[in-house]
Amino acid sequence: MKKYSIGLDYGTESVRAILVDTQNGDTIAVSVEHYLHGIMSPCPDFALQDPQDYLDSGWKVLKEVASKVSKNEIIGIGVDFTACTMFPVDAKGEPLCFNSNFKDNHHAYAKLWKHHGAKKEADEINRLATVRGEKFLDYYGGIISCEWMLPKVFETLRCAPEVFNQTKYFVDAGDWIVFKLTGSWVRSATFAGYKGLWSIEEGYPSKEFLNALDPRLENIASTWISPVMAPGTLAGLLSVDVAKELGLQNNIGVSVATIDAHSGVPGMGVYSDRTACFIMGTSSCHMFLSGSLHLFKGMAGAVHDGIIPGLIGYESGQAAVGDLFAWFVKKFLKDEKNLNAFEVISKEAYSLKPGAHGLVALDWMNGNRSILMNHNLTGNILGLTLDTTSAEVFRALVEGTAFGTKKIIETYRNAGIVIDNITVCGGLSLLDEVMQIYSDILEMPINIAESNQAVALGAAIFGALACGKGNGGYDHIEEAVTHMVKPALKTHSPNPDHFKNYREIYKHYKTLHDFFGVDHPEIMQELKELKLNNNR
Amino acid sequence: MKKYSIGLDYGTESVRAILVDTQNGDTIAVSVEHYLHGIMSPCPDFALQDPQDYLDSGWKVLKEVASKVSKNEIIGIGVDFTACTMFPVDAKGEPLCFNSNFKDNHHAYAKLWKHHGAKKEADEINRLATVRGEKFLDYYGGIISCEWMLPKVFETLRCAPEVFNQTKYFVDAGDWIVFKLTGSWVRSATFAGYKGLWSIEEGYPSKEFLNALDPRLENIASTWISPVMAPGTLAGLLSVDVAKELGLQNNIGVSVATIDAHSGVPGMGVYSDRTACFIMGTSSCHMFLSGSLHLFKGMAGAVHDGIIPGLIGYESGQAAVGDLFAWFVKKFLKDEKNLNAFEVISKEAYSLKPGAHGLVALDWMNGNRSILMNHNLTGNILGLTLDTTSAEVFRALVEGTAFGTKKIIETYRNAGIVIDNITVCGGLSLLDEVMQIYSDILEMPINIAESNQAVALGAAIFGALACGKGNGGYDHIEEAVTHMVKPALKTHSPNPDHFKNYREIYKHYKTLHDFFGVDHPEIMQELKELKLNNNR
Repeated sequence: MKKYSIGLDYGTESVRAILVDTQNGDTIAVSVEHYLHGIMSPCPDFALQDPQDYLDSGWKVLKEVASKVSKNEIIGIGVDFTACTMFPVDAKGEPLCFNSNFKDNHHAYAKLWKHHGAKKEADEINRLATVRGEKFLDYYGGIISCEWMLPKVFETLRCAPEVFNQTKYFVDAGDWIVFKLTGSWVRSATFAGYKGLWSIEEGYPSKEFLNALDPRLENIASTWISPVMAPGTLAGLLSVDVAKELGLQNNIGVSVATIDAHSGVPGMGVYSDRTACFIMGTSSCHMFLSGSLHLFKGMAGAVHDGIIPGLIGYESGQAAVGDLFAWFVKKFLKDEKNLNAFEVISKEAYSLKPGAHGLVALDWMNGNRSILMNHNLTGNILGLTLDTTSAEVFRALVEGTAFGTKKIIETYRNAGIVIDNITVCGGLSLLDEVMQIYSDILEMPINIAESNQAVALGAAIFGALACGKGNGGYDHIEEAVTHMVKPALKTHSPNPDHFKNYREIYKHYKTLHDFFGVDHPEIMQELKELKLNNNR
Repeated sequence: MKKYSIGLDYGTESVRAILVDTQNGDTIAVSVEHYLHGIMSPCPDFALQDPQDYLDSGWKVLKEVASKVSKNEIIGIGVDFTACTMFPVDAKGEPLCFNSNFKDNHHAYAKLWKHHGAKKEADEINRLATVRGEKFLDYYGGIISCEWMLPKVFETLRCAPEVFNQTKYFVDAGDWIVFKLTGSWVRSATFAGYKGLWSIEEGYPSKEFLNALDPRLENIASTWISPVMAPGTLAGLLSVDVAKELGLQNNIGVSVATIDAHSGVPGMGVYSDRTACFIMGTSSCHMFLSGSLHLFKGMAGAVHDGIIPGLIGYESGQAAVGDLFAWFVKKFLKDEKNLNAFEVISKEAYSLKPGAHGLVALDWMNGNRSILMNHNLTGNILGLTLDTTSAEVFRALVEGTAFGTKKIIETYRNAGIVIDNITVCGGLSLLDEVMQIYSDILEMPINIAESNQAVALGAAIFGALACGKGNGGYDHIEEAVTHMVKPALKTHSPNPDHFKNYREIYKHYKTLHDFFGVDHPEIMQELKELKLNNNR
């Protein structure tokens, strides 16, 4: 008899369900549904969502894919979600925005991962934690983001104390979906670790720290759900009510949730150390695995069980990659008649020999997420001459993002993490020339993941893992991945003829990186402030 | 009776004659003729011309304008020429390329000012002069250019000793034209001073230095014509033969020649200190006047009588200005349908508030002529973000060239030269928005010269000055300029509301200037070499 697992993948604008054969990884059905209210931005920096949309769209795609096979063949469900996407719920687990008293209160809704309303609060947390030498900072390279849980809760406390006071739990959306499916409250180690300031060694930030931040936050830990468990662990069985609603059996195992990007790691076929995993699209997310804990500046999070159970997962990121290429093509190649501008310039750019343009670009057009964690940094293009072409600049921008990645990998290696190959998924992974440039610059082979929906596949893998072998799933992640992920589409091997020139350019990239990013960040920051002040 | 003077203005690709009323400056006639052979480039770095073209085209335009009035009304001729445009002549003053033995030898032809075949020789001269502490270097800010006389002669010695050995004089083309008109050999202080390593205090480089450079150069001074005299001085009367050939009287006074750009200073109406004169076109030439000699790094030449008789003339330059704007429009706004791309982007760029783009650009896309005198430097654009537009970059490039000018003016002021206003001619002087940006950044009023052929007008002024009052001309430069130059077209006054933001950007410009230009020139240089090595 066939056995299937469902991956339920909640992205920024839509949710996707895929139904996967647990024996061979075949994808039997896919369904995608956009959230009815999309992203709501009632004021600058705000990015809100309505949790009802998660239920409406999520249950719809679940039903849709489940209908493709016999209900007794479906054994598990795994859930991944953007993070930190969070909202307040009452004692029954109902989002406060469902309560008519709060339906007009922005802070009662889900604050999407990219909600930036808590910048001031994040600054205060960073300042105080730095002054006090709080250990938790070390797990995040010394700085936390305004996108994370505590700043968002702190913002709610300040801007909407009436919401804060009525909150039983502040939940990650992914954990809430698992609760809605099973009736069980379980906090994913991934959400707690990367976004919730929790570590297995240190637990949550101390009451002393929280009290110093704001006395009303002292007992905030009582609003986090527990226990904390690794993704791939069984959170519970599908509840009778939901099973009925979805037309499924109620003995289906539901896995502890995970972060969407992180779910891509098993979905790309990776479950052990030495292989870096990149998701490359508008921005890039880099994930690394290691058997041991290394805390160092330049990584944005180190979490036990954070990506793959049993290993420490690390993450870093670049804030603009595909976005950067698109920006250049859109703003600097205004030929509106030419819909193929991207292809045309790519062809010209990729025909150049490495080094032939004499350019080096800092890829910080959307700030530097790793390793400098400074969103006030900006882009720079050096080496321009009167014969420089737009295709040459485009090529330099592509290379600039690869040099940014190289700097990240160097930082990890210097910290003791071994990396000897790379697996990539995401839209950019299909651009062969871009991948070849990355391979040549990083001097490592790059495997292209077979699945074009590796994130959702990863969730399905966790669903199969949560069920266990006895129920037709798997007991170990390596078994699950080995069966459910197909071989890489292709491998790009580094061309040693290109190393010398790229190393020469990278030497200059590092000089610029250190001058503008480390020694004199005030140059870019002051210019950016000038821009902001004169555009108000 | 009316009195007229002719300005004979030899440019890079054509010669222009204008006939000017010496009483009121009215331009009565203009004639322009391109050189038959244009610029000949038989190999990379070579830029040659045929002196026969100077005669054919020059005499033609002279005849043309002279025919517009009675021949007895024409009192003087002034000549300006590009520099250092030089060639070897025999004892009779015939260019060696006119000799059938040498008609296939590149080095027997005129090496145009932008001939770059003597880079190696210039490097050797600079190295040796620096080591020996040669005083002449101080007159040129510490470095001489491969475009000047001695490197070009040295190149001829090495590459074509047979030409070198048959040379009686190596002449500047402007001096040769004066010789052809008058039969008199006179070396212009302008050519000798700015391009010939001569100064009134030190004379020419010493025999010891020349011997150390190459023993065959020890007596090279015997190949320079003499005496050295200031432009505006009478070189001689028009010879009987030439007068007859041109249909002119032979009592016409011919002025000592001058460099084309320098001729623009009186042509713009400037004859005294405190006013900087800019000629702004594809590149910018800056000229300054002072009653006293200041030798400092950052100026490219300081010469007694070099621009205006009786004053020290100083010059500096920026290697790409209009060229830089054209490069950006051509390479980065590829809408071939849109012939008005320059106007469209200008309109958008000039509607921005100062500082609103958050960008700062180093304008070294064709190297830095002043104050760094390093042609290996390249351009840089800093402050790019994902919302940066092409119009914003264009605006930053315009501002970047103005900041480059500001750095030059600061250097002059620091050396003790007073500058409190600016007069500009050239194609860019007619772009009001560009001039306003310059005025705001330089914080000085900018006068736009009335004549759109100020260089040729300056030559006509020198023609009138050479004749003297007794012959219907003038005895003093201020009299000649006052009568022959009309009031400025307009004045752009600096807007104090813009000072603060531009000072802020300039602060960062200077940081980048010093980092890339002074402390770490190897970054741009090594990238440029990489480009060259990978494009061969």
